[in-house]
This record gives sequence, structure tokens and C-alpha cells, in this order.
Amino acid sequence: MSKTITVWNEYVHERNHDEVAEIYPDGIHAIIADALADRGFETRTATLDEPEHGLSEEVLDGTDVLTWWGHAAHDEVEDEVVRRVKERVLDGMGLLVLHSAHFSKIFKKLMGTTCGLKWREAAETERLWVTNPAHPIVDGIDEYIELPEAEMYGEHFDIPEPDTLVFNSWFEGGEVFRSGCCYQRGRGRVFYFRPGHETYPVYHDDDIQRVLANACDWAAPNEDGPDIERGNSEPIESIDTSDERSVH
Amino acid sequence: MSKTITVWNEYVHERNHDEVAEIYPDGIHAIIADALADRGFETRTATLDEPEHGLSEEVLDGTDVLTWWGHAAHDEVEDEVVRRVKERVLDGMGLLVLHSAHFSKIFKKLMGTTCGLKWREAAETERLWVTNPAHPIVDGIDEYIELPEAEMYGEHFDIPEPDTLVFNSWFEGGEVFRSGCCYQRGRGRVFYFRPGHETYPVYHDDDIQRVLANACDWAAPNEDGPDIERGNSEPIESIDTSDERSVH
Amino acid sequence: MSKTITVWNEYVHERNHDEVAEIYPDGIHAIIADALADRGFETRTATLDEPEHGLSEEVLDGTDVLTWWGHAAHDEVEDEVVRRVKERVLDGMGLLVLHSAHFSKIFKKLMGTTCGLKWREAAETERLWVTNPAHPIVDGIDEYIELPEAEMYGEHFDIPEPDTLVFNSWFEGGEVFRSGCCYQRGRGRVFYFRPGHETYPVYHDDDIQRVLANACDWAAPNEDGPDIERGNSEPIESIDTSDERSVH
Amino acid sequence: MSKTITVWNEYVHERNHDEVAEIYPDGIHAIIADALADRGFETRTATLDEPEHGLSEEVLDGTDVLTWWGHAAHDEVEDEVVRRVKERVLDGMGLLVLHSAHFSKIFKKLMGTTCGLKWREAAETERLWVTNPAHPIVDGIDEYIELPEAEMYGEHFDIPEPDTLVFNSWFEGGEVFRSGCCYQRGRGRVFYFRPGHETYPVYHDDDIQRVLANACDWAAPNEDGPDIERGNSEPIESIDTSDERSVH
Repeated sequence: MSKTITVWNEYVHERNHDEVAEIYPDGIHAIIADALADRGFETRTATLDEPEHGLSEEVLDGTDVLTWWGHAAHDEVEDEVVRRVKERVLDGMGLLVLHSAHFSKIFKKLMGTTCGLKWREAAETERLWVTNPAHPIVDGIDEYIELPEAEMYGEHFDIPEPDTLVFNSWFEGGEVFRSGCCYQRGRGRVFYFRPGHETYPVYHDDDIQRVLANACDWAAPNEDGPDIERGNSEPIESIDTSDERSVH
Repeated sequence: MSKTITVWNEYVHERNHDEVAEIYPDGIHAIIADALADRGFETRTATLDEPEHGLSEEVLDGTDVLTWWGHAAHDEVEDEVVRRVKERVLDGMGLLVLHSAHFSKIFKKLMGTTCGLKWREAAETERLWVTNPAHPIVDGIDEYIELPEAEMYGEHFDIPEPDTLVFNSWFEGGEVFRSGCCYQRGRGRVFYFRPGHETYPVYHDDDIQRVLANACDWAAPNEDGPDIERGNSEPIESIDTSDERSVH
Repeated sequence: MSKTITVWNEYVHERNHDEVAEIYPDGIHAIIADALADRGFETRTATLDEPEHGLSEEVLDGTDVLTWWGHAAHDEVEDEVVRRVKERVLDGMGLLVLHSAHFSKIFKKLMGTTCGLKWREAAETERLWVTNPAHPIVDGIDEYIELPEAEMYGEHFDIPEPDTLVFNSWFEGGEVFRSGCCYQRGRGRVFYFRPGHETYPVYHDDDIQRVLANACDWAAPNEDGPDIERGNSEPIESIDTSDERSVH
Repeated sequence: MSKTITVWNEYVHERNHDEVAEIYPDGIHAIIADALADRGFETRTATLDEPEHGLSEEVLDGTDVLTWWGHAAHDEVEDEVVRRVKERVLDGMGLLVLHSAHFSKIFKKLMGTTCGLKWREAAETERLWVTNPAHPIVDGIDEYIELPEAEMYGEHFDIPEPDTLVFNSWFEGGEVFRSGCCYQRGRGRVFYFRPGHETYPVYHDDDIQRVLANACDWAAPNEDGPDIERGNSEPIESIDTSDERSVH
């Protein structure tokens, strides 16, 4: 059965700035959703302006993987929605965190760090080198992806060391960046993917779209993981439980 | 120069329950601070009842490693103090998270997960097996530490996979638990150490005290780490920066 | 298209000892191959006595995942075959290393450590606790697998820290063991799975069979990973290459 | 007490090529040993031409950290010496693997992979960015080290994913490289450090020397790690051991 992807976008720049609207006339969410639909996923979109930012319990319950793009309006995302998304990720929903969403509330909450970095807008060359050629996320990709016009993000990127590092970026101006980072949090798989600035046509790139699709496949939850019990538990072995000391 | 350790304790059970007071008459913080002082550290203590829980900016600025014990009153710890502790950890202060502090606000914020687990109070045997005999935290320890009376904590423990797993516990009742877990968050080193229940004399154990001292040594910040610049950055290489597209 | 699994067994105990033959009349390889075939894989078997141990270049080229069981005859495996298997793993073939194969030449070569451990044959209870409930290898499994009769393997297990730890075993006699360990070496995925002693009917267990099948799915190579070039490389950027200093 | 470092060098280029001798008149080992002695270590050197390559059991037993430089003569290193060095690393001796020693027998045996990479000699700029500012290896270093003339090493570097990645290199010609990689194997800590070509004066650089000294401190063994027992073990708990099934 095909996986259901919810593509979230704050959808601010595209409506406020002509140069962005020219590249993404229907919003960044539209092109991402189309790219994923073309590759066999069920997709829907959600944006900041919708009630509950389009991320009701019902929507999230029906979502296998959520992709997140934000930049100018991180603070406008309601804490209650962030809490809900986080709960769903810990429960197994996949999460793709895109570009400037490194500073989104949800990513910072899942990482526990500041997620700060260097940046520069100079339409410079980026080359994303594959550092793990066996990872499913790079299936069908060459040994690097070259973007002629990119915003620079540079180290030190304040994240926990990734569980797996998939891409490592070179920038024309002299910096490097860990640009494809895999994490597990609870039962959820999280992929941070650096490319994607609003003033450059990065999401039109076929390789970038393929990475997004691969990452959705990778991040989708398992069919049938173990039921986990937590809290006060009876012993499995036969042991003496007569000790009464407790301040609970 | 000797390292300064601040030993934090919510200090509730010891004052409310005679059976706890008998084991820890001056509080859990007192015995931990004494054990660390005996092993060459500068120590001070801080408790929930003090103004700012004893964790003012000044105290934290002068702390190399903070140890944290809490159980009944996690919710009474002020968010502002938690924010401040987290900021200091990300800036390099070490943090030892002890036993029931797995559910402390600070640990959950740094991990990004629920930190839930199984538990049982039956004064049963725990055996902490060393899974990394070369780690500085187990210097001077045998291949396992045996505690005759322990609260059980069992898997699945909902934490990010540790950067390094140092101890793995066996329990008489049939469970296992990852009981010594190392993390880095920002510049701070974090060690979760499982033993330490309020109704058993675990912190009187010499091996447990030695692990705590080793962990303080390990978690203390470096003398002189790199200064990191974040934010908008000029290129290092000479590149064309004439492109004007930006919506900042 | 279904994946092809080659099930390798030294096939010594089953022919030399009646108590083993009773449990595995056609060899441990036969029951593993049947279990995998039942779950949709193409399977074939190979044993020590065959020419090239049944692992010719051709066989390996047609193998997606190789499973390896050995115990009494590790030293009889020819170095040339080990070299060939290792080359294939680094090139993407998955490898399942079972039970006493922790001491196989191929596992030691891929790990770089002694792979030593504690052991005891007392038909005691083992309980394999899931430490990563979101891993595809535990799909369909409960929070633990209990084996009523197992050989004990105990820490410290001298392996590199696993990329991902999936199972953590409890033993009746007081030990613990990291019993499901994931690694990547080159392009190959490697899974060490502890259960499987020759004198107990472990491979008849449905959960154990399911883990093996899940692990084959997980370890199988990607369809279409990047082509990687190594060795002397021309610059991608236009740089001055007139410097003549070289002692090559 | 100060740590003892043995600095090993194949010592071939410096004697065969004037351009190398000009930079390293007494050999690469001499400048590394001097740099470490200046920073408080006991040092000695050993080279390929000496009996047992200068690495007798006695020398290795007295060594806390071994540094290894080789390039043209990897195959001339005797397997017995490699075996001996590996055994000592697994037993706790630190190992620094420098530059072209990525292809040394000892590194390949410890990693289990091909350790292949891209390379180019064009005296181009390398910038080693710190990816872990809290690691003791970067104490006293800025956020990057810039080398005006370096041999390029490029991804994909065929190594197991490092336990900790400390440096990430940018090259003028367009490549990136994981250039400071920490591993643990057995009880030994291993650091691969990329810089160090024979035709450029890299080891004269003060920052490079400081990293080497920091890495020796980091890699040196603990005072007093646990004694580990392996092999057949009696149960700790009282269990029934009357089962006689065994084919040992």
C-alpha cells in the first residue's frame, strides 16, 4: 500500500515576495507534494494559515511521513501543534526537516540543541558528497549532487552527532556542512536535509526530488513493531517481592 | 586545578519519610557531595527549596559538572531554571543524570524523547555489566558492579541510542537495562547513570561513588575549545557575492 | 523480485553427534533455508565440504544476503574464500552472522577485534529484550523473545560498538549480552544475531525465524547505489595544477 | 607521569627524494617526535629498516600511543609485526594513523574495510573544519585549520562510520573529506588524522602539532580498567547446571 506523506510549509515567502513566487508559484509545498506524488506516494499539504496549521490529530494519525519547511515564521507555530507532531514522531511517524527548518521548534525539541549554523546568500555552488553510498536515501544518486546556486550553511552545526551521516556539503566560499543527517527519536525516523532555499529553484532539481522520495520511504514507520509496556511491572522470574520499602 | 561539582537534589523523600532519612540523614546530595570531595573535587550542593533552586547564573557559571537527582517533584522545577541549566550544558558544563532523574525536565529536554521505562520496587539484585572496559568512567571498576538491593528499571528505555554505552544491567526479576549512557549535547557531556534509589543505600557503595567521580572527570569541560561563530558569514574564498536575491 | 539468500553452514555437529542430528536432521542450514523460503526468499545452501565451501564467485555474485553458521571448524575455512566473501560484503552483499560464528574468520576480519565472550552450556533461560522497537528487524516481534533453553553468551563481548543495538539478552545465570548488533562495512550490512546453539532447537522457534527473515530484508543491498570513483582524481573546480612536487 | 609515544615512520621518501629531505631532513618521525617531546611526552622513534621495524614486544609493551606514517612501503611491513601491533591496540595502546597510512596494513585490519579514497597532488588549499568543538582533540584549536598546500583526499572514504567525527575537510578543487576520525577497537583508541603529505611542510604547522599532542593524550590507555574474563564461565546465580547436552 502506498505511504501517505503530509507536506507542511509555512507558505509565507511565496505570497510576499515576487522573486520567490516566480520559482514556486503555488508554494514550496506544492512542488514537493507533486514530486512525491509522481514517485508513488499519497500526498497532501498543510500550511501555517490553516486551522491547527493543517495538522489536526486526524491528519497526523493518517500520516506516515511529515515533511517540514519553515523559515520566517517558526515562532508562529503553536506549541500545542509542535507537541502533537513530536508525540507522533516518537510514536513512529517519519519526519523530514528541510533547509531553514533547522531552526523550527519541532527540530530543536527533538534534537535538544540550538541547531545553529553559519549562513550566507550568494548563489554559490554547493556540492553534496555522498558519505554513505549504501544508505537507501542515496539510491539512484551519483557520488555527488551539484547545485549551481545555493545558500551556504556552514559548520559548526550544533546538532547531536547524527546516527548516520549521508551527505557532506562543499561550498564555493570555503565551508563544509553535514547536509544529510539521520536520527531516530522514539520510534520515529528523522532526516535533516539541507538544500532548499526559497530564492533558488532547488526543489525543481530531479536529484533533490529523488532524495526526498527515498527519505520518505526510509522514514515511514514499520508495519508491526513490538508493543512496549512501560511503568510499574510485575517480575517475569519468580522472585521475592515481600520487601515493603517504598515511598510511592 | 580541581573541578567544581554542584550536586543538586530535590530533597523531598529524605525529609518526608523516615525510612529514607535513615539511609540518607542529610539528604542524597550530602553523601554524593562527600564522596566527590573525598575524591578531590570542589563540591557544593543545591536543592529545590532554595531560591532559584540554588542554581543561579552565578552558581552555574562556576560549575564544571552538575549532578541531578529528582523523583517526586520534577514538575516543581521552574522552567526558567531548566532553560538556564540546558544553556550551560550546551555551552560545556557536564551533567550527571541520576536514577529517577530520567524523568527530569532537563533530561527530557536534552534527549527529545519521553525517557519512559519499566520499574519495580522489590529490593532485587542488580548487576551492572561493563560493556566498554576502556571508557574512563569504569576506571578502577571490576567487570560488573553488583547491588544486592535495587529498584528495577527495564527496557524499553525510550532514549536516543547512546553515543557510548558503558553499563548494561541484569535484574533478578528477568529484565535488562542500558544503565550507563553517554551523550554529547552542544559542547556538554551528559552521563545517565541508573543506580540510586531512595530506599536502598546505593550511594553508600564504594564502586558507585567511584563511577560518579570518574564521570565527573569525564564530563568536565575542556580548557580551551574553539570559538565558534554562527550566523551570517563572509566567504573565506574569493567568490562573486553580487547576487541580490534575498528575502531577509 | 524476491531476494536470494545463501545459507552457509559448516555442517559438522549434525553429522557427528546424534543429539544434534535429532534436532537438525538435515543440518542447521536446511531449517534456516526452509524458514526463509517459507517467508518468500529464494534460498540455496552451501557447506564446508563442498568445493570452495560452496561459495564460488558465481554463487556469491548471485547472493543478496549470506547467512553464516560455524563453530567447530572455523579454521578449516579457506582464507581465499573468506577474502572473497569479505570483498562481496564490502561491495554490498548482506551478511548474517549467527551464534558461534562470532569467532568465524569472516566476522573477525570485518570487525577488527577478537570477538571474544563468556559462554556456558546449561540449557538456561534467555530473554532477548528489544532495545530498538522501530528497527525493521523486530517487525512482528513482541518486546522480548524468550528461549527456555539457551547457551549463555556473556559480556564483555569484544566487538566495535554496534551502529545500532537491536537486542539485549538476559540470562538466568546472571549475565547480559548485546545479542542483536547491526554494522555497515563498505556497502554491506552485517547483522550479528546471538541465538542458535546446536544442541537446543532454537532455529525451530517462530520468532527466531522471523528475525532472520527481517534481517535478510534489512541486509539486502540497494537497487542502485552511487558509482564511486577512487584513486587519482582531476579537480572539479578550476584550480592551478602546475605544482610539480610529487614522489609518486 | 608522562606518557610514552612511539613515532613510527617507514622513512623511505626522505632518503630517496631531495625535495622531501629538504622539508624533513631527519625524517617525518623526527619532527613529530620533537613536537610531542616539546609538549611533554616521552618519545622514541622506530622505522621500517630496524629489526622488527623497531617494534619489538618490549618496545610496544612500553608504549602508550603509537603514531604510524607510511606510504610507499606498506607491503614491506611484516605481518607478524602488524599482528603484534594490533594485539597491543586491542589491549589498550592508542594508535594515531596519519595521512597515507590510511592504506597501512594495521589500519585496514582494524577497520575491516578497503580504506580507499580519492587523491590529487596539486598543492591546493585544505581547510579542516571542526565538527565537534567539545572533543579534547581540538583543545586550543580555532574553528578551522587552514593548510595552504595540501594533497587532496576526497570522499567516498571507505571506512566504518567513525564513533566520533572531529574534522571535516574542504578542498580547493571541490571535494570534502572526513579528516579526523575517532574509533575504539578492543580497549584501544584509534585516531585517523588526514594531513601530512611528504612534499609539503604540514608537520611543521603548530596547529597540526597541537592536534597530534591532544590526540596522544586522548588515545593513551586508562590507568586501571576492569579485568575481563572470557571463555567458559560458571553461573553467578544459582541455577540448575545438570543438563549434559554438549558437543564440546
